[in-house]
Amino acid sequence: MKYKKIFTKITNELATFKDNGNVANYIPELSTINPNKFGIHLTTINDKHFNFGDANEKFSIQSISKVLSLAMAYNLEGEELWKRVDVEPSGTPFNSLIQLETDMGIPRNPLINAGALVISDILVSHFKNPKEEFIAFVRKISGISTIDYCSRIVESEKSTGYRNTALINLMKSFGNIKNDIDIVMDFYFNLCSIEMTCKELSQTFLFLATYGISPYTEERVLSKSKSKRINAIMQLCGFYDEAGEFSFKVGLPGKSGVGGGIVAIYPNKYCIAVWSPRLNKKGNSSKGIQFLELFTTETQTSIF
Amino acid sequence: MKYKKIFTKITNELATFKDNGNVANYIPELSTINPNKFGIHLTTINDKHFNFGDANEKFSIQSISKVLSLAMAYNLEGEELWKRVDVEPSGTPFNSLIQLETDMGIPRNPLINAGALVISDILVSHFKNPKEEFIAFVRKISGISTIDYCSRIVESEKSTGYRNTALINLMKSFGNIKNDIDIVMDFYFNLCSIEMTCKELSQTFLFLATYGISPYTEERVLSKSKSKRINAIMQLCGFYDEAGEFSFKVGLPGKSGVGGGIVAIYPNKYCIAVWSPRLNKKGNSSKGIQFLELFTTETQTSIF
Amino acid sequence: MKYKKIFTKITNELATFKDNGNVANYIPELSTINPNKFGIHLTTINDKHFNFGDANEKFSIQSISKVLSLAMAYNLEGEELWKRVDVEPSGTPFNSLIQLETDMGIPRNPLINAGALVISDILVSHFKNPKEEFIAFVRKISGISTIDYCSRIVESEKSTGYRNTALINLMKSFGNIKNDIDIVMDFYFNLCSIEMTCKELSQTFLFLATYGISPYTEERVLSKSKSKRINAIMQLCGFYDEAGEFSFKVGLPGKSGVGGGIVAIYPNKYCIAVWSPRLNKKGNSSKGIQFLELFTTETQTSIF
Amino acid sequence: MKYKKIFTKITNELATFKDNGNVANYIPELSTINPNKFGIHLTTINDKHFNFGDANEKFSIQSISKVLSLAMAYNLEGEELWKRVDVEPSGTPFNSLIQLETDMGIPRNPLINAGALVISDILVSHFKNPKEEFIAFVRKISGISTIDYCSRIVESEKSTGYRNTALINLMKSFGNIKNDIDIVMDFYFNLCSIEMTCKELSQTFLFLATYGISPYTEERVLSKSKSKRINAIMQLCGFYDEAGEFSFKVGLPGKSGVGGGIVAIYPNKYCIAVWSPRLNKKGNSSKGIQFLELFTTETQTSIF
Repeated sequence: MKYKKIFTKITNELATFKDNGNVANYIPELSTINPNKFGIHLTTINDKHFNFGDANEKFSIQSISKVLSLAMAYNLEGEELWKRVDVEPSGTPFNSLIQLETDMGIPRNPLINAGALVISDILVSHFKNPKEEFIAFVRKISGISTIDYCSRIVESEKSTGYRNTALINLMKSFGNIKNDIDIVMDFYFNLCSIEMTCKELSQTFLFLATYGISPYTEERVLSKSKSKRINAIMQLCGFYDEAGEFSFKVGLPGKSGVGGGIVAIYPNKYCIAVWSPRLNKKGNSSKGIQFLELFTTETQTSIF
Repeated sequence: MKYKKIFTKITNELATFKDNGNVANYIPELSTINPNKFGIHLTTINDKHFNFGDANEKFSIQSISKVLSLAMAYNLEGEELWKRVDVEPSGTPFNSLIQLETDMGIPRNPLINAGALVISDILVSHFKNPKEEFIAFVRKISGISTIDYCSRIVESEKSTGYRNTALINLMKSFGNIKNDIDIVMDFYFNLCSIEMTCKELSQTFLFLATYGISPYTEERVLSKSKSKRINAIMQLCGFYDEAGEFSFKVGLPGKSGVGGGIVAIYPNKYCIAVWSPRLNKKGNSSKGIQFLELFTTETQTSIF
Repeated sequence: MKYKKIFTKITNELATFKDNGNVANYIPELSTINPNKFGIHLTTINDKHFNFGDANEKFSIQSISKVLSLAMAYNLEGEELWKRVDVEPSGTPFNSLIQLETDMGIPRNPLINAGALVISDILVSHFKNPKEEFIAFVRKISGISTIDYCSRIVESEKSTGYRNTALINLMKSFGNIKNDIDIVMDFYFNLCSIEMTCKELSQTFLFLATYGISPYTEERVLSKSKSKRINAIMQLCGFYDEAGEFSFKVGLPGKSGVGGGIVAIYPNKYCIAVWSPRLNKKGNSSKGIQFLELFTTETQTSIF
Repeated sequence: MKYKKIFTKITNELATFKDNGNVANYIPELSTINPNKFGIHLTTINDKHFNFGDANEKFSIQSISKVLSLAMAYNLEGEELWKRVDVEPSGTPFNSLIQLETDMGIPRNPLINAGALVISDILVSHFKNPKEEFIAFVRKISGISTIDYCSRIVESEKSTGYRNTALINLMKSFGNIKNDIDIVMDFYFNLCSIEMTCKELSQTFLFLATYGISPYTEERVLSKSKSKRINAIMQLCGFYDEAGEFSFKVGLPGKSGVGGGIVAIYPNKYCIAVWSPRLNKKGNSSKGIQFLELFTTETQTSIF
């Protein structure tokens, strides 16, 4: 309907947009994706669905999962969580070690790699089988029982995860990692390997548009306050050192992944997922951001 | 009414809150303020008014002015503006020189000192009498003709402005200041010296809750898009290295000043100004943030 | 004789010196050392020996070994070596990751941990049995066949080597480590575990006072030019962020280890080793530096 | 004689050396120098003289003066001096503000701009007419009464000294500048404007090769200890972030200036001055360093 038309209109506009971005190449398995894939899926809080293009094709959601592990850990730990990770924008790339050294092993926020590793460590502490528990959580909130890890991606990331290994060892040296490094890394790489379609992604994140209630089970996943706070963290930290630019242009809380996916929330209205694998210099989907900027302008749905 | 009751209720709760903050002391003139002052004023987009405590006492709005000079420069320059100043959170204190050196003289955003100096330079380039033009702009959007600079504060800031002089010289060495340093500094110090009451402050910023239309003149001050974008910048950069914390707890775009004032916007609903001179370690009003956190929780008016 | 008397005189002066330093505690095995140990041994280029106190007691030479592995690698690689590690003072602590990130994985110099890890990687590339080859090299230049690794120290370091693991993974992510991380780390930890007495230490380093010729085998260990250049590197980088202070006060090229040892070279005259386990805030032997300052003043043997 | 022959030999070798360096252009007056000038002058401690090329042509010694103002201030303040400036290599470019912010306004060493500004401030505190006193000091130690400031260079530097103005204001904000900024800056710019020939330069610095005694007046200029310590500081800090490279290749304490001059000391033997205006990327004379490397190799006069 309305949204569908807007998707088409904007996509036509973007046809002239020259996208010089490249597919992520530091994870071998990701580099083989067709760079011209493009999908959109919007789910309203009333479970109405609108899509475009490759919306039903699976892709690696990568860092987008960090919001889900954060939600799970926040539920378990409450405000104690913030003793181990801060909520400030980093002002630096997603895998920087600099501030971690200056800040004595406390990551700036839970959505940069260092912060997501601390969150992983917390989940490993809580559960005997953290991978099972986590995927069960994702399936529950999304209502989709087939969502799963991708073992090829896990292996591919493990083969080149030196930077993340550096981060976790640095934090361990400051005492901010409690468990065995290999176990936490295994959990983290699995976390990042989850595959979803745009449709699945927008369904999974819908609970953040409904103030914490899963639209599928009607269960409360998160308290209203926690749900809003996670949106606030996404707004400030969801796009690494491009967070300001995204807020400025798109005006919604959201999260990107190097697989080319972006999810964004318009509270009390909808959740939208976009997928385009070419990344800009900051590591975010180039066409995805472009599309969302035009979309929130056209629909007047920026939160500001 | 409703808001009035909430003000009283929260203020009672805060009575037990131990505020160890200190009044800003690096500007001699500010250090003489009674630290126990406390005022609140909320103005709705329909020009309804609710206040509490010292809401009608003038104080130095300091850095809060930076949003107004940004609005004026954005109107004049359009998107060209962002060639000279970025829109990313800084991750560092308000007067840091470190990123400025790394980023070749381009400030991270227009709300840190370096960015506001660049904005000042732009206004000095545009006008023959920038001080007159700027105060006229502030009077027009607020509908209050008595708002003015405070020459005592200007003199006081000039006597200790070494850090700001360092910032502007560093940017000049990179070619990002076009005018004579003394003229730009004089404009900047005047900008920061403006005095308002909580009532005046909430009226002045109301145009950012009404998508750019001044409620008093019914004139458009800023385009809708520009108005939203300024809110986005406030959300990400309005509280220096406490921006994440403020977004997380309060959930509204806002801006603080070392005079102890905070202004926050709930788009399409209200603008609220709070004043309490004791500052926390990050240089923001301690009780002001505490109050706003309880207020947006109670009224469920976070944008997230 | 002359030196012996000076040792006694200075040691008496130092008796009143209050040493608040602490024994290194981050490696469990090192923390059990008697902090009051104090030994001195000076060997002249004519193989005359002068000693004082605990000069014949073994201790862990730790980072002092980095000069020996550098000498071996420099011999093998020649000036090609400097493509993988620089020769500039770091201005930061011995285990900092900050400059490594900024400098794309190229360590500032071969005497900080990162640099010594790169040197280890190079030796691992050259030899089938690098540990055997290296200890054989040390025994040859010192003429002491009993010098050996200490497996307890190796195990102890491995149990807490998170910071070093962070460093090596960060460099691997930049492509500046060619071999398997575990193999390089094992070599590096063995390197740092070598135990010597003050006497053995001053004999081992004597070749740097004789412009590269081993006084024991009369073989050339290093070219004259390379030998001088290693002294230059020690002068500028041998004491981490206290290198300036050491040069200023002592005026000799030297190297410290967290075991409390220091070795210093007066070219064409002598090599001196001092051992006192209490470390100052920069991680260097507190009393050792104090002694050497008084010693080079008394004997007028600063190179400046 | 001997040295003369070596000069010719090396100069012939260097004829094939392609020097892509550029003359300093940030000070307008310096940019007009003929880039192909090349002069050498060596003075032995017995006042024997050897020269080559443009050794008797005046050039702007620029930062080389910082050693002379340091010597004067060290004499006046003794070890108290080090409360206001450190003696560590900076690891950063000569005009960096970064470490100054981190280190609370204490410059890393007296030979970077920030440190030289603090030294200037100290001299301004000590004297009624600091410029007169300083030039008198330089004339006395050199035995050359015609050495003088160059007012054209002073004016030229003042017109573009924004970076230095940033540095001094930043230090003033930390309380590490005691006098009026304009007076200190005027002294500093004069200091840097001094002109000398290679001959004059090598005579002026000869007191650092004679352990503090002026060879011309036979007066003690500095105590032996202070003289050696200044050599140590030059060794570690005389070439900004190329100090390691210079020590490594040349092996003598020295100091460079952006006018293309370098002075180096071989204690108890000679002082040598070289001049070639083309600068490498670190801001040091490209051919000057190349020459000195070959010269100390040929003459075997590195201190290491």
